[in-house]
Amino acid sequence: MLNGIYEILDKIKQQRPLIHHITNYVTANDSANITLALGASPVMASEIKEVEEMAGHAAALVLNIGTLSSQTVEAMVAAGRKAAANGIPVVFDPVGVGATAYRTETAERIIREVKPTVIRGNMSEINVLSGLHGKSKGVDSVADETDAESIAVQLANKLACVIAVTGKTDVITNGKQVVRLENGHVMLTQVTGTGCMTSSLVGSCCAVADPLAGAAAGIAIMGIAGEIAQQSLKLGEGIGTFRIKLFDAVSTLNDEILRSQIRFG
Amino acid sequence: MLNGIYEILDKIKQQRPLIHHITNYVTANDSANITLALGASPVMASEIKEVEEMAGHAAALVLNIGTLSSQTVEAMVAAGRKAAANGIPVVFDPVGVGATAYRTETAERIIREVKPTVIRGNMSEINVLSGLHGKSKGVDSVADETDAESIAVQLANKLACVIAVTGKTDVITNGKQVVRLENGHVMLTQVTGTGCMTSSLVGSCCAVADPLAGAAAGIAIMGIAGEIAQQSLKLGEGIGTFRIKLFDAVSTLNDEILRSQIRFG
Amino acid sequence: MLNGIYEILDKIKQQRPLIHHITNYVTANDSANITLALGASPVMASEIKEVEEMAGHAAALVLNIGTLSSQTVEAMVAAGRKAAANGIPVVFDPVGVGATAYRTETAERIIREVKPTVIRGNMSEINVLSGLHGKSKGVDSVADETDAESIAVQLANKLACVIAVTGKTDVITNGKQVVRLENGHVMLTQVTGTGCMTSSLVGSCCAVADPLAGAAAGIAIMGIAGEIAQQSLKLGEGIGTFRIKLFDAVSTLNDEILRSQIRFG
Repeated sequence: MLNGIYEILDKIKQQRPLIHHITNYVTANDSANITLALGASPVMASEIKEVEEMAGHAAALVLNIGTLSSQTVEAMVAAGRKAAANGIPVVFDPVGVGATAYRTETAERIIREVKPTVIRGNMSEINVLSGLHGKSKGVDSVADETDAESIAVQLANKLACVIAVTGKTDVITNGKQVVRLENGHVMLTQVTGTGCMTSSLVGSCCAVADPLAGAAAGIAIMGIAGEIAQQSLKLGEGIGTFRIKLFDAVSTLNDEILRSQIRFG
Repeated sequence: MLNGIYEILDKIKQQRPLIHHITNYVTANDSANITLALGASPVMASEIKEVEEMAGHAAALVLNIGTLSSQTVEAMVAAGRKAAANGIPVVFDPVGVGATAYRTETAERIIREVKPTVIRGNMSEINVLSGLHGKSKGVDSVADETDAESIAVQLANKLACVIAVTGKTDVITNGKQVVRLENGHVMLTQVTGTGCMTSSLVGSCCAVADPLAGAAAGIAIMGIAGEIAQQSLKLGEGIGTFRIKLFDAVSTLNDEILRSQIRFG
Repeated sequence: MLNGIYEILDKIKQQRPLIHHITNYVTANDSANITLALGASPVMASEIKEVEEMAGHAAALVLNIGTLSSQTVEAMVAAGRKAAANGIPVVFDPVGVGATAYRTETAERIIREVKPTVIRGNMSEINVLSGLHGKSKGVDSVADETDAESIAVQLANKLACVIAVTGKTDVITNGKQVVRLENGHVMLTQVTGTGCMTSSLVGSCCAVADPLAGAAAGIAIMGIAGEIAQQSLKLGEGIGTFRIKLFDAVSTLNDEILRSQIRFG
């Protein structure tokens, strides 16, 4: 089902795919470093005058609306269209969609005009997108994991893309197949940018694999890295050291570790 | 005098207040992580089209002009007015005020139009603000700590807010009561963003306590964390490790440690 | 040849020069912290309304087009002209020049209008600049280190500035004298921002020394710090810890270590 998932890390290290990011200023450094830790090559460029040309060089595009602005939204749409026209995968991270009308409208616009290959968000974000696309029930009515799966599958079919919901159990689906992953640690929720970094990992993996396998691999890598990082902590160490160990874990990961530590749900 | 200061950390962890930041791109990641380390929930949003709505969800607003731009200044004023109208605390960090006319005008405008709940800066910054608000003596004439206290008290009364001056001795005052704190370590001045992070801590604390207690707690937490971080350093370790240990210290702090390590001046 | 290179660290710590950066949002935090680690004082300011005034306070200006935008480009030109008029060194880091037409035009414009004191880039970037300034052969025709030196010397003479090419062997030249440095470690290429940080170190050193010595010192410091950081890594540690140890190494460096560990090519 997950074609070539255990060769992804080797492939990334061999191909060093260029991953173009248009992302937020809070976690851009983390996204760049996690991309490098995996062996891919990040480039951050968000000026409208150059994003299409930059996307034209890339093997994947990551769009993240964490600190969206009028200018970066236009850049995201332009780069996204170029990427779609070139047939490279576009990973969309709808950070905070639902929190403001502007975020919601922007997410809708990106989905409509760019048609992302993968949308990665938490359950709350995916619920909002689901509500926008034909689901009549309110957002708060959905909570348990059975629902998570059915919402993700419905949305994936509706939008013809891979939906990846990260949480205690991660659900990744292309609308036909569903992958459930159980890796991770609660400390991942106590550091900013772990979601953004996961989207960067997903982008890097999708540059060398099909979207379902790539999304699953990217999410599994962050989950496994979180476990390794947490296990290495000593007394008195907290989220500062945990965050550094995350980068260590991703940069020392290989396909063997991925194969042996991945836990399907 | 400091109502409930020793219950602040527990309260933050229970309530997980949302702290809306409009801040600079240099230390935004640090501010987000220190807010998370304390147990609060940061959100960075600076697009004028959404800041009022975002501020409407928040329990406190932190405004920081470290890398101000025409756009973010408008966003700060709009969000600040919304926060004031909603009665949530606004912490203003006038980074570098006095260095350029534009910074000074902007600080004045924010003070005039937003009426911050707490202004946190170093002595030089507070001196500049003091000079703008009726104090006739030049900035450089003021140096010793007696003056720091009288300047802070005067300014607090003039602006009807809490003035928090961080330095070797920190002075926090609402114009009537004065708190002096002696925690901290010189290494805190050798890492970028410790001032910005302190403002984030103050914002988080003011979300669950009154402004005087909240400002004092936030400043005490950074000072204590600096001491713990410095004490844990080994030979050959410098500001890189110190900075990581700061996050560790804040994320492992609790009300007991705060109570036992706080040093009033 | 390298006047006073072994007194640079002491001088920086004594003078604490203000280093004005107009740089990218990905590595701004790293640039600020590495500048502080060296003992200099960073300020990041990129709003057109204040950059000339800020540059007027500075001892050096660092311009970096990593995430250039229409606004920051205007700010770079304005600040650069002010710095040039004041006779303070301007270090230009043409990140990614050649990747897009906009980057290339901007680099050309900055070179033409600002006349930087030092241009620091990798071989690929310096090749692009060389191609723009009268060299007829294509970019890809150049690979070996003999060529690196001749390209750098030619460009330095053409532009009347110091050209600093960082790579396995670093080449720094003012067009007459050539310094070759052999410090460094491959892990420096696996962390984002090491180039940007090197430009910050170069800016800090040029604030207290002549441009050739300053550029060489800044580059040597990053190379030596990379070696020290790598040697301190333990099993299981990767680029996360390496990056932190880099800051540790710079912040604990002194002129003695610089003298004993610098390796000329």
